[in-house]
Amino acid sequence: MSQTEQHPLDAAIALTELAPGKYTGKTHPGYANAVGPFGGVTAALLLNAALQHPQRLGEPISQTVHFAAPVSDELIDIDAQPVRTNRSTQHWLILARQNEQTVAMCTAVFALRRETWSATDLQFPTDLPAPETVAAMQWEHRPEFTRRYDLRYISGIVALDKIGSEAAERDDAESSLWVRDQPPRPLDFAALASICDVFFPRVFIRRQRWTPMGTVTLTSYFHTDSKTLSEIGTDYVLGRARGNGYWNGFFDQSADVWSANGQLLATTHQMVYFKD
Amino acid sequence: MSQTEQHPLDAAIALTELAPGKYTGKTHPGYANAVGPFGGVTAALLLNAALQHPQRLGEPISQTVHFAAPVSDELIDIDAQPVRTNRSTQHWLILARQNEQTVAMCTAVFALRRETWSATDLQFPTDLPAPETVAAMQWEHRPEFTRRYDLRYISGIVALDKIGSEAAERDDAESSLWVRDQPPRPLDFAALASICDVFFPRVFIRRQRWTPMGTVTLTSYFHTDSKTLSEIGTDYVLGRARGNGYWNGFFDQSADVWSANGQLLATTHQMVYFKD
Repeated sequence: MSQTEQHPLDAAIALTELAPGKYTGKTHPGYANAVGPFGGVTAALLLNAALQHPQRLGEPISQTVHFAAPVSDELIDIDAQPVRTNRSTQHWLILARQNEQTVAMCTAVFALRRETWSATDLQFPTDLPAPETVAAMQWEHRPEFTRRYDLRYISGIVALDKIGSEAAERDDAESSLWVRDQPPRPLDFAALASICDVFFPRVFIRRQRWTPMGTVTLTSYFHTDSKTLSEIGTDYVLGRARGNGYWNGFFDQSADVWSANGQLLATTHQMVYFKD
Repeated sequence: MSQTEQHPLDAAIALTELAPGKYTGKTHPGYANAVGPFGGVTAALLLNAALQHPQRLGEPISQTVHFAAPVSDELIDIDAQPVRTNRSTQHWLILARQNEQTVAMCTAVFALRRETWSATDLQFPTDLPAPETVAAMQWEHRPEFTRRYDLRYISGIVALDKIGSEAAERDDAESSLWVRDQPPRPLDFAALASICDVFFPRVFIRRQRWTPMGTVTLTSYFHTDSKTLSEIGTDYVLGRARGNGYWNGFFDQSADVWSANGQLLATTHQMVYFKD
């Protein structure tokens, strides 16, 4: 990628403003998933509608996205409104429609942060191999969007080459990996929101087999600001994901995302449909 | 409570239908918190608007609530709409307004479940004391809503009697407790949605001191159905809560809720404002 070329993520989250809070966007072939675009990029696109809004207050604190229907390659109409603006917090509703039908719904909290006592209860692992020493994930039949990420699994990868060969089911669904945009791109909230959805469905990891699935709703909490993210730049971030419960067609998984020096950047949770 | 008397939770989540999807509700003094009503009951009230809706498909899979502003004791106008109904899933947007201003915003997924492979990655503790052997929480200056729950802390309670006396900060913010409605009431989705918010703010547990705080957004994932919940009846459920990260005015916490026989009923997460 030359210095003057637009990064595919920036192309994928680009908005055309029609009126205040009214935008159009479109899918980008670089982030295609099996059906429709990668959910992380839809999350980034919708967050970007609030980020670009002239009435935005502060920075993202949380985002919830409902994946209501597959997003097609037609124009996406986006309606972003701050439904409540308080002194230091702001609540957003962002609807994405195609042909007058809701395809995605997003809510978010933005806020002006102030410096306070801070701490982390989650533990950053101490025995991490450097990203350069971990092999980048490579496999033949991969959704296109995975080529937009440099995924370096430290543990808990699905044995994709063994799918169909009855690999043994596991007792848990934990993974950890180094990840960054491919090509590298300075980290910001849009990129982080997308990375929050980069973890493979835990049902694949737990069962070591493929099943039809789709995230129905994703929630991410941000513990960082633009300044911290820009300091991380194009460094790898650490992601750790785990499954919680799987019951009659839906499961949930949780993950956390850290800077390489151990700052917690985000926690993220999702509820996922699976077929059998 | 006599057999004919309405349970306070049922009174608190009662809706008056004005038109399809348009309801009014009101706060109940029994669920008052320091400022406005207990968030769990607001979650239950908003979920109830979808549960009562004639177009509802199936049962709750997830709920996200934004606490946009304090709810006052005036009438609450509720607008519940299924923004997208698919073959087996349905996405909801439920807005609560007072005096034309949004005070709470809720999204939810409902679905028709089918029997599938099921499992739980989270571990149910093996060394639990029976609820009857754990003392019910008792303290003088408690918000009214806490009297509507029988809270039996097994571990990780804030030393409320020591507040202000510089009790030592802890390394984590984990708690576990048995909980049920007080007076006992058969468990259903509304009661479960409310219990998902019953865990004290982790910043109190971690720091062993009080600070001004308020949940800004709560997300709960349900791994159960009405039949299972009705079988639990008035039994205690186990709740376990933990903190994740605290950074410049906001922290997040996660919890899971189980039946006494070890079925995972819900996982729940929230982002919380704190002052200093």
